[in-house]
Amino acid sequence: MRQKTAAIVVIGNEILTGKSQDENARFLIGELHSLGVALRRIVVIPDELDDIAAAVRECSSRFDYVFTSGGVGPTHDDLTIEGIARAFGRAIVRNPELADMIRGYFGDEADEARMRMADTPDGSHLVREEGLRWPVLATENVYILPGVPELFRKKFEAIRERFRAEPFHTSIVYTREDEFDIAPRLDRVVALHADVEIGSYPNYTSEEYRVKITLESKNADSVKNALRALIEMMDPTAMVRIE
Amino acid sequence: MRQKTAAIVVIGNEILTGKSQDENARFLIGELHSLGVALRRIVVIPDELDDIAAAVRECSSRFDYVFTSGGVGPTHDDLTIEGIARAFGRAIVRNPELADMIRGYFGDEADEARMRMADTPDGSHLVREEGLRWPVLATENVYILPGVPELFRKKFEAIRERFRAEPFHTSIVYTREDEFDIAPRLDRVVALHADVEIGSYPNYTSEEYRVKITLESKNADSVKNALRALIEMMDPTAMVRIE
Repeated sequence: MRQKTAAIVVIGNEILTGKSQDENARFLIGELHSLGVALRRIVVIPDELDDIAAAVRECSSRFDYVFTSGGVGPTHDDLTIEGIARAFGRAIVRNPELADMIRGYFGDEADEARMRMADTPDGSHLVREEGLRWPVLATENVYILPGVPELFRKKFEAIRERFRAEPFHTSIVYTREDEFDIAPRLDRVVALHADVEIGSYPNYTSEEYRVKITLESKNADSVKNALRALIEMMDPTAMVRIE
Repeated sequence: MRQKTAAIVVIGNEILTGKSQDENARFLIGELHSLGVALRRIVVIPDELDDIAAAVRECSSRFDYVFTSGGVGPTHDDLTIEGIARAFGRAIVRNPELADMIRGYFGDEADEARMRMADTPDGSHLVREEGLRWPVLATENVYILPGVPELFRKKFEAIRERFRAEPFHTSIVYTREDEFDIAPRLDRVVALHADVEIGSYPNYTSEEYRVKITLESKNADSVKNALRALIEMMDPTAMVRIE
């Protein structure tokens, strides 16, 4: 079974200049992993049309889902909709349903700045869920989310179950052995367990362990077998714990 | 004056799966901004040769500096050196100076796993600074830094002054006006102050303000002029403060 993959495109000068810290990619990393979706890329780019179009085009063609963060307000630096339209060679059209919602909500105050929030890349669709006052806008496989962290989180939480896949199974081994000494043995475990993603992470600050080895797969038995093979190859007196 | 630009390439499945939180890009954002270097992109990619090669190649050609984080240890998932070599079409060669240092440090324990830390893309150079036991390896404009946050920080801090440029000048205005209402006026300020980067960020949680407007440029006078024009256009009774 090919697993579902995703990318996050964070749009905003404020992140690249440190005026705001990214919270949305950080949040979505945990969400996607717990949903069983393999996150393959995060890109942070400035509020520039060409950058947005190029990042969205590439991520949309390579991955199953793309989530954008930011650039969807009414001001000059909000270029995400136009960038996504350009990515897919689409015109921007005023979505009649969104336009009705805006008129219903703002009444007499629904001026052009507010009505522009109904402008969408042609052929987009609205993702509606209970608890969402405004639907999530999606163009092809690109889900367009706001940069404000509270709204980003609320919108993603409303649509998250649409993305649920088989869960990941993970084991972690902590050891006091040195990574240089483990490397040749670890290579053998990796070679024999191709369907398990194995990572090795040295630590220089913990008193408890020197290397953390992670094993992850969609197949629980594969993780179990790789874990068994790994443990057999390690120095049992240096092993700290297994999670 | 064209300003210096940079990209950060974070390499590591552990970030994309949430097993570790990125600390290095987060740290470097602040460093680069305070050095006056314009960070234009952050990419987080998995431990995959083709992804590393493609990201490094593109960032190296578009930006003045590229900083990679991670993937430089002795295990199977450490593919950064090979990825960078592929990005530039270079062979991997054992650097004689690094090899001497490794033999000097490890003595009889300098086995092949350890000696491989001297393998570098052909034509790389070593950046030496006081306080650094090991030099920083660089290939063209790509500075190769370790993923372990303490080491990443220590190495970058040792070389940071090489990248110092003209500082950014920044002003920030906080207002209780609504972003929709500000948008048309802000467009006029933006149009008249092309050399100032202006950002508008709504806030839905603060009791104090609703929109934060940032103005930034390498030219202090430009920021001052744009700030003056902005203030003139805003509702003075809704302005909270200026930083």
